[in-house]
Amino acid sequence: MKYCSFCRAELHYEIPDDDNRHRYVCRSCDIVHYQNPRVVTGCLPIWQDKVLLCKRAISPRHGYWTLPAGFMELGETSFEGALRETMEEANARVEIDRLFAVFNLPHVDQVYMMFQSRLMDLDFFPGVESQEVELFSESDIPWDKLAFSTIRHTLRLFFQDREAGSYKLHTGDVIKHDDTNYQFVPGPES
Amino acid sequence: MKYCSFCRAELHYEIPDDDNRHRYVCRSCDIVHYQNPRVVTGCLPIWQDKVLLCKRAISPRHGYWTLPAGFMELGETSFEGALRETMEEANARVEIDRLFAVFNLPHVDQVYMMFQSRLMDLDFFPGVESQEVELFSESDIPWDKLAFSTIRHTLRLFFQDREAGSYKLHTGDVIKHDDTNYQFVPGPES
Repeated sequence: MKYCSFCRAELHYEIPDDDNRHRYVCRSCDIVHYQNPRVVTGCLPIWQDKVLLCKRAISPRHGYWTLPAGFMELGETSFEGALRETMEEANARVEIDRLFAVFNLPHVDQVYMMFQSRLMDLDFFPGVESQEVELFSESDIPWDKLAFSTIRHTLRLFFQDREAGSYKLHTGDVIKHDDTNYQFVPGPES
Repeated sequence: MKYCSFCRAELHYEIPDDDNRHRYVCRSCDIVHYQNPRVVTGCLPIWQDKVLLCKRAISPRHGYWTLPAGFMELGETSFEGALRETMEEANARVEIDRLFAVFNLPHVDQVYMMFQSRLMDLDFFPGVESQEVELFSESDIPWDKLAFSTIRHTLRLFFQDREAGSYKLHTGDVIKHDDTNYQFVPGPES
């Protein structure tokens, strides 16, 4: 960020009065251009004993499997965003049962919210961002072909809860140590 | 948003290829300037049968009572943000017990996350954004002097759960009908 998006003036990266961290400040408009984490919202769509996954047709992680999810948009709720992403990526209709996972990913400035949901019918098919959409039993999950560590942890915790016979909200942080080493730190549970 | 913050070129408000909604696009940099909702994170600090509230020393809602909360910052987790805001606004040390509330506020593009927490000691005092910090019993809560509807719903649900003897995650949407009419629509519970 170099220039003010309102007036084109050069921005100053400085600590504003009454603040305690560096921000991009336009001295001409006298405004601060704040930057904040974004919310990724999506679904864990269930049909009987199976979970719906999408094979990504776009980068990053082209060709790897994921749950339908994406950035929450202006003007929508996290529920609406989760349903929208599930429709866009898998043309799948679901009903949301519960908020299942809230993970922080501070290395990419994201908060990931995943909703456990029931698939309403089997008329799903790949959206433009997916190559394939398929239902997987626990034993068939392509664990070594999952796109993101958040997806692995969500699925792992889901099957763990299902085995225990009781679902709950899971919170936690995904901490990046290096490109191949991501640590999952569980947070408080509800 | 009128100009590209990277190159100063005029932005075009248009639907990019492979997208389905209007975005601010820089044709010169060939990038999209996405805008997304922000996360407000905070604490519901408890001491015995009392809740800590802060009287706001800043606008909006100057002079009204609130729970310590604020915008999540880049590079931090929602837990860290909740602890930071509690320290900044009330100089209060807490331990987080659970994620208690996740509310969508689509009219202001916010997701509100509130953590139930235990106050560690009574050495709290107002930060620069607070006039007063005080512990309130349920019967003393200044219901008509609360700063935001999210705070009212969080406190109402907390006392309801406490009465029932069991705490859980609450989700929901705060929908604005007009300046004085906000509707709370409960979402799925965990």
